[in-house]
Amino acid sequence: MPSRESAAEFSGRRERLSSFLASYRLDAFLTTARPNVHYLSGFTGSNGALLTARDAAVLLTDPRYAAQAPRQVDCAVRISKRSLLVEIAKYVKQRRWRVLGFEQNRISFEEHQQLKTLLPEVRLKPVDNAVEALRMYKSEAEIGTIRASVRLNSVALEQALAHFKPDMTEVDLAAEIEYRMRLLGADGTAFETIVASGERTALPHAHPTNHPIQANQLLLIDMGATVAGYASDMTRTHALGRLDAKTRRMYKAVLESQLAALAAIKPGVSCAHVDRVARSVLRGFGLEELFIHSTGHGLGLEIHERPRIGRRERTKLEAGMVITIEPGVYREGLGGIRIEDTVVVTERGCEILTPTGKELVVL
Amino acid sequence: MPSRESAAEFSGRRERLSSFLASYRLDAFLTTARPNVHYLSGFTGSNGALLTARDAAVLLTDPRYAAQAPRQVDCAVRISKRSLLVEIAKYVKQRRWRVLGFEQNRISFEEHQQLKTLLPEVRLKPVDNAVEALRMYKSEAEIGTIRASVRLNSVALEQALAHFKPDMTEVDLAAEIEYRMRLLGADGTAFETIVASGERTALPHAHPTNHPIQANQLLLIDMGATVAGYASDMTRTHALGRLDAKTRRMYKAVLESQLAALAAIKPGVSCAHVDRVARSVLRGFGLEELFIHSTGHGLGLEIHERPRIGRRERTKLEAGMVITIEPGVYREGLGGIRIEDTVVVTERGCEILTPTGKELVVL
Repeated sequence: MPSRESAAEFSGRRERLSSFLASYRLDAFLTTARPNVHYLSGFTGSNGALLTARDAAVLLTDPRYAAQAPRQVDCAVRISKRSLLVEIAKYVKQRRWRVLGFEQNRISFEEHQQLKTLLPEVRLKPVDNAVEALRMYKSEAEIGTIRASVRLNSVALEQALAHFKPDMTEVDLAAEIEYRMRLLGADGTAFETIVASGERTALPHAHPTNHPIQANQLLLIDMGATVAGYASDMTRTHALGRLDAKTRRMYKAVLESQLAALAAIKPGVSCAHVDRVARSVLRGFGLEELFIHSTGHGLGLEIHERPRIGRRERTKLEAGMVITIEPGVYREGLGGIRIEDTVVVTERGCEILTPTGKELVVL
Repeated sequence: MPSRESAAEFSGRRERLSSFLASYRLDAFLTTARPNVHYLSGFTGSNGALLTARDAAVLLTDPRYAAQAPRQVDCAVRISKRSLLVEIAKYVKQRRWRVLGFEQNRISFEEHQQLKTLLPEVRLKPVDNAVEALRMYKSEAEIGTIRASVRLNSVALEQALAHFKPDMTEVDLAAEIEYRMRLLGADGTAFETIVASGERTALPHAHPTNHPIQANQLLLIDMGATVAGYASDMTRTHALGRLDAKTRRMYKAVLESQLAALAAIKPGVSCAHVDRVARSVLRGFGLEELFIHSTGHGLGLEIHERPRIGRRERTKLEAGMVITIEPGVYREGLGGIRIEDTVVVTERGCEILTPTGKELVVL
């Protein structure tokens, strides 16, 4: 298991945040979103708020975390039985801060109203995705943790498939996959494991059922583990017995689309371009209309992070970004195929972190 | 497995919502929180918005759910590749609605700003916990599903403990528990399974580690399954071998506190009263200071729902509410004990849904 990040890494992140925020002329910045609090302080509890100023940082949480918080974080900790918003307001007043930034996409309308009432003399400034923007660029330590998460995920699939028997249900295979993840050291799943067979593969977000997985059908597995807080994400589509020519051609199309998108990745290229490359290959097969989602997404402390690899995403790829590439085609009544890897953008292209093969496997 | 709710149940809920909202004088109400959308429509996808008016309801989602949504819901469905907020605004304009209610605790500051920009001529009215208030009172069908979830959870613990061996790690036991849940038919866990042994039991939200579970220690397990969307929640604290007199006394205190709180439950009693009863028993043992969280919480489509069984919660219990009762004491360096059941409030008191015994079990 990779070691947790050092305290220096967290304080470095808060420094980068402060520089990023300099143009906003804030006295302090309030973070309440759990993955952002984790990223800036190391705290993993379910209820925490972080106030970051140029010269100080303080984590506020409740008594359930009185023992855990000081062990995890490298900054001051305040424990209170009262609501975090009340505690935040008290601290802001004590420090006489006049301009407080907040995460506009994370705080609810109601929380914002409450803060306004509690801090009538403080100017509250909405800030757009400040921590999320920092989180797009992964450090070496983070890439190491994601690499471990991706490898564990692949080993879990291999071990689970070694226990595969025809007529096993989708639910039983999902149970086996998640059990293997756990025994291998995952904290849990990064999202609800998808195991779909037959026609159900045409539902991109199929929930495993008690349907037995039968011969001469498709089997689609989309799975991710969380390891030391970091997600992995992989999809593979297997065949049970013989597939008809139409389905084999669909597989070929998706694989070529995925390989073309991977080949298009390098620093300076826009996310929209990578998405277009994936779509244009499917267009050549007459299947573009059946590709009904975006080509991929960033991942890290959350399963879906910036950047989105979609039609309208102008963000340019840079070395250190970690993204998924997952084209898919879905034909109702017949089935669906998706192939997904997790990759890190490098100076010259990308490194595919997922070690699992992509040729059509017949179980 | 219990059957899903009937379509009539969903339309009935939307009717109750409309009556509830009549005093707000709204043309329509916007729901975006996933469990609330599920509750009002049956849709379980990760990206959906529901507009409810007196005479109509429409679910908006993206193409990934084009096949799934019409199978799940009993109202109109609109599929769009564009952002849900844009699609919501378009629909509101088409219907010429002038006053739109929104969930003030669920919508972000940013989403509210975007809606204001998209709908400059519409009055946006914040609404406080409207769907959550309806969700406090469970129907017979919902209680049946929670009962199934709670039973499955107890069977999973029993099966996992049958595989328990001394020196098994916390992680391995957590893996076994979650595997059993899945094989028994759970959709997954309702929250991160807590398996803590020895001193780590003093952390109320301990994350399972690779520590072997050793003799003459405490073992605390807090676990919950999700079954057909509904959560269960149970904590048991076991002994491995012999415990010292001080720890045995702590167990006795927590069990008496839990039993007293359960006995205090009946319609008309406030949540704060039940919390006080649990605390007063611990005070008698000189342990009140070590009880650092609230006595319980509602549960249903979410693991934490209203009402909170805490000091300041004035809500009065009513028949049909489903809550947990989980006092605990935590002594750093020594260990912690928590005992938790899920119960449904009845006309005369409560029915304990959790079938697992609470006497101190020595493994």
